[in-house]
Amino acid sequence: MIPRWPRRRCLAAPLLALLVGAPGLVAAQAPPAAASCIACHGAQGEGQAAPGYPRLAGLPADYLQRQLQAYAGGMRANPIMTPLARAMSAAERDQVAAYFSALPAPARAASAAPVVAADVAELALRGRWSEGLPGCMQCHGPQGVGVGAIPPLSGQPARYLAAQLQAWQGGKRPPGPLGLMASVAARLSAADVAALANHFGTGPRAVPGPAAVEPARAVATGFVPPPLSTIPDNEFGKVVRQGLAIFEHTGTNAPAFSGNALACVNCHLDAGRLAGASPLWAAYLAYPAYRAKNGHVNTFEERMQGCFRFSMNGKAPPLGSPTLVALQSYAYWLASGARVDPNLPGRGYPKLAKPASAPDRARGEKVFAADCAFCHGPEGQGQQAGAVQVFPPLWGPRSFNWGAGMGSVANAAAFVKANMPLGRGGSLSDQDAWDVALFMDSHERPQDPRFVDSVAVTRQRFHDSPMSMYGRRVDGVLLGEQSVPAGGSTVH
Amino acid sequence: MIPRWPRRRCLAAPLLALLVGAPGLVAAQAPPAAASCIACHGAQGEGQAAPGYPRLAGLPADYLQRQLQAYAGGMRANPIMTPLARAMSAAERDQVAAYFSALPAPARAASAAPVVAADVAELALRGRWSEGLPGCMQCHGPQGVGVGAIPPLSGQPARYLAAQLQAWQGGKRPPGPLGLMASVAARLSAADVAALANHFGTGPRAVPGPAAVEPARAVATGFVPPPLSTIPDNEFGKVVRQGLAIFEHTGTNAPAFSGNALACVNCHLDAGRLAGASPLWAAYLAYPAYRAKNGHVNTFEERMQGCFRFSMNGKAPPLGSPTLVALQSYAYWLASGARVDPNLPGRGYPKLAKPASAPDRARGEKVFAADCAFCHGPEGQGQQAGAVQVFPPLWGPRSFNWGAGMGSVANAAAFVKANMPLGRGGSLSDQDAWDVALFMDSHERPQDPRFVDSVAVTRQRFHDSPMSMYGRRVDGVLLGEQSVPAGGSTVH
Repeated sequence: MIPRWPRRRCLAAPLLALLVGAPGLVAAQAPPAAASCIACHGAQGEGQAAPGYPRLAGLPADYLQRQLQAYAGGMRANPIMTPLARAMSAAERDQVAAYFSALPAPARAASAAPVVAADVAELALRGRWSEGLPGCMQCHGPQGVGVGAIPPLSGQPARYLAAQLQAWQGGKRPPGPLGLMASVAARLSAADVAALANHFGTGPRAVPGPAAVEPARAVATGFVPPPLSTIPDNEFGKVVRQGLAIFEHTGTNAPAFSGNALACVNCHLDAGRLAGASPLWAAYLAYPAYRAKNGHVNTFEERMQGCFRFSMNGKAPPLGSPTLVALQSYAYWLASGARVDPNLPGRGYPKLAKPASAPDRARGEKVFAADCAFCHGPEGQGQQAGAVQVFPPLWGPRSFNWGAGMGSVANAAAFVKANMPLGRGGSLSDQDAWDVALFMDSHERPQDPRFVDSVAVTRQRFHDSPMSMYGRRVDGVLLGEQSVPAGGSTVH
Repeated sequence: MIPRWPRRRCLAAPLLALLVGAPGLVAAQAPPAAASCIACHGAQGEGQAAPGYPRLAGLPADYLQRQLQAYAGGMRANPIMTPLARAMSAAERDQVAAYFSALPAPARAASAAPVVAADVAELALRGRWSEGLPGCMQCHGPQGVGVGAIPPLSGQPARYLAAQLQAWQGGKRPPGPLGLMASVAARLSAADVAALANHFGTGPRAVPGPAAVEPARAVATGFVPPPLSTIPDNEFGKVVRQGLAIFEHTGTNAPAFSGNALACVNCHLDAGRLAGASPLWAAYLAYPAYRAKNGHVNTFEERMQGCFRFSMNGKAPPLGSPTLVALQSYAYWLASGARVDPNLPGRGYPKLAKPASAPDRARGEKVFAADCAFCHGPEGQGQQAGAVQVFPPLWGPRSFNWGAGMGSVANAAAFVKANMPLGRGGSLSDQDAWDVALFMDSHERPQDPRFVDSVAVTRQRFHDSPMSMYGRRVDGVLLGEQSVPAGGSTVH
């Protein structure tokens, strides 16, 4: 059944559309201040690859405006841009940003990217989480096309991209929202910078500059799963790869069992490899195990069925189905070389100490606005690049349902503390993590599929914990009430 | 369906019954030579616990006859028995043996055994396979009641039992059939001897003698599974124990899925713990894996379904059924601490080199008679103690079917070489192992459940290997033909 969904509780989505600009609509007339831009960036803001002048067309207006402001304020230094930006008034900067943002972006410029070594492709796609490094595309979207306020990488001059990463490494460009880019750049070697710039960029190739700040290589403690590049090229490896594909793109590759916009990898970072982010290898070796949640010994396959039913708000794939066999094969393969132990270091999320003050929703809302909304959207609705969900929705009809583990404030707080913002795990205070977890879990989401009789009965039976907001009244709304199934029967 | 079964190909079973004697029938008259026996062993051959005179009543006639012969010949030394045995003619010894064998054995004498420490009970039941030591009850039957030609332990004087083990240790008693008892005794410490004697025996307690030959403690190489005594006392442990119970007594604890007289433990020795005997922990960590046998990636659960279908000649328990969950839980628990690796040292059976001469059935028949029939019976039919199957049938309607892995001569030879006779693995030559494996697999057994159309078609499809005797003609019999299902359809 389709749950009844509430009216929007804020109107941020239209605002976001404004910020992002409306690519496809060409502004009839360039504002006078744009003339100096056009000299280098081109009449259509298309940029010039050879000298490394970036494309402006179709970039987020908000992003362009912030860059002009940074040049004007001296936080970003460039001998051409600084005087030009300073010559503009604040209003002119806004006009120019809006103008170029509204110009149409060239279609699929990234397709011209040269063939690159698999390890750069892997770095661009999935990052290098052994050093806490997210993949570029995890925020910039598939092929680096850009997502919302996050600018595109594909089709920009390679040398421009390299220069920006070097600028972040040298502290010559503002650290960017949530400090993400400064943090990311600090983990890249000079060779990484050039390789990534050439991977996404066009025009003359970037060459490695002098090693600015060689990244501190993280010392791996505990188990390290094998690199994905070593999945064997045989019949077994084929199924392992299917499992990986389902894990990363669950809706696309297991559509019959997915009921929302999430993918396994949203909670199990780095393709299920990352210690402290419920790594799949540790989970695989923790089952069969008794679970209080359903009162019997669960195999790993049954445990995964639970993920589909609750976290994916979908249906349990049958035992022995290709979906579960592929996921199990991938999990088993990831565990290669690990010790069989239900409590391997790195399992689950690191336990978070109780907060100094009781978690507070109002404080959590502020944390959310400051540290989460940039990626997950002001209404927690996530963000897409075209049809591809880049950032997952955290509540609402396309998120996990009330039966999911993430619906426990304690679980969510532990996850957030260790892993959020993406690539900056550990940067929030414990209190912030608790507050924002409470805020997230105080929103309506799909019904618990174990629903019986009423929200009150369901709460008593399955949510009788101070860590569950199900059945609690928040701002006059009884959480769980919005999607009570007609007739009061269970949903699935 | 019930397969059509062949007329017996030899008539050894009635002979065996003669050898074992017919307990329950009391001989009317004691032969004159028995008078000297009765003085110590009692009028009913019941023995005397205090002085340590063993019970003779109901013991295998063959066994008694061999002991008298050993005393007479000086291979077994005793100041009372030696002159008495020498005073008898060979015919008198046979009469005396037959007489006492036919006397009724006391019912359940073992029930009076004192409560003993768990580790002695474990040694008596399952042995200490880390030192190659089988459990006493693996040959002497449940509670040591005796099986066929193998004498009872329960109810014999504890001091008598201890004295016999010490005699084997000191080379003062013939090593027994296949040299098993000499081999077993050599692995027992002085404390083991006393503890086992007291476990099974009655009367005054045996005390540890001077440490005769302290057993060479095997140095464990590779993975050693946790002792069964450490299965946790919780909800998970309960299911692990269910798995163990199914593994050891499959017919009793998984009757819906068992189709013959075998148990998992018959091929996976030491409760699935023993390296080189297809240990369960290594198998658990080898799946999911691609199997050529069915052309796809199999989970461990599906692999176990194959065991039930073929080796157990039964039905595959459904995925997620309590039977498979319990077995999987037991396997996972056994693997605790192992490294995840599909090729752990100890997996399967050690590969056996090709034989110097092509395997030969006639030679194999001689090996079987000399080294296998004592336990498995002259017709490979196994042996029972009451309702309990102590030694598994190797062919015929109560054994594994044509689809089982043991139906491959190469597999069977590797198993036999490494593990047979029980507790004397490695003692046969490679050639003997190949020959006897061919002999075993050249007998009729239940149909391959994948049967299609005809034996010839089924051979072509599933047995197209020089290692399978299915569909070959042996002594004029087409193997597989005896249990062709009516109508030519598949059996299951």
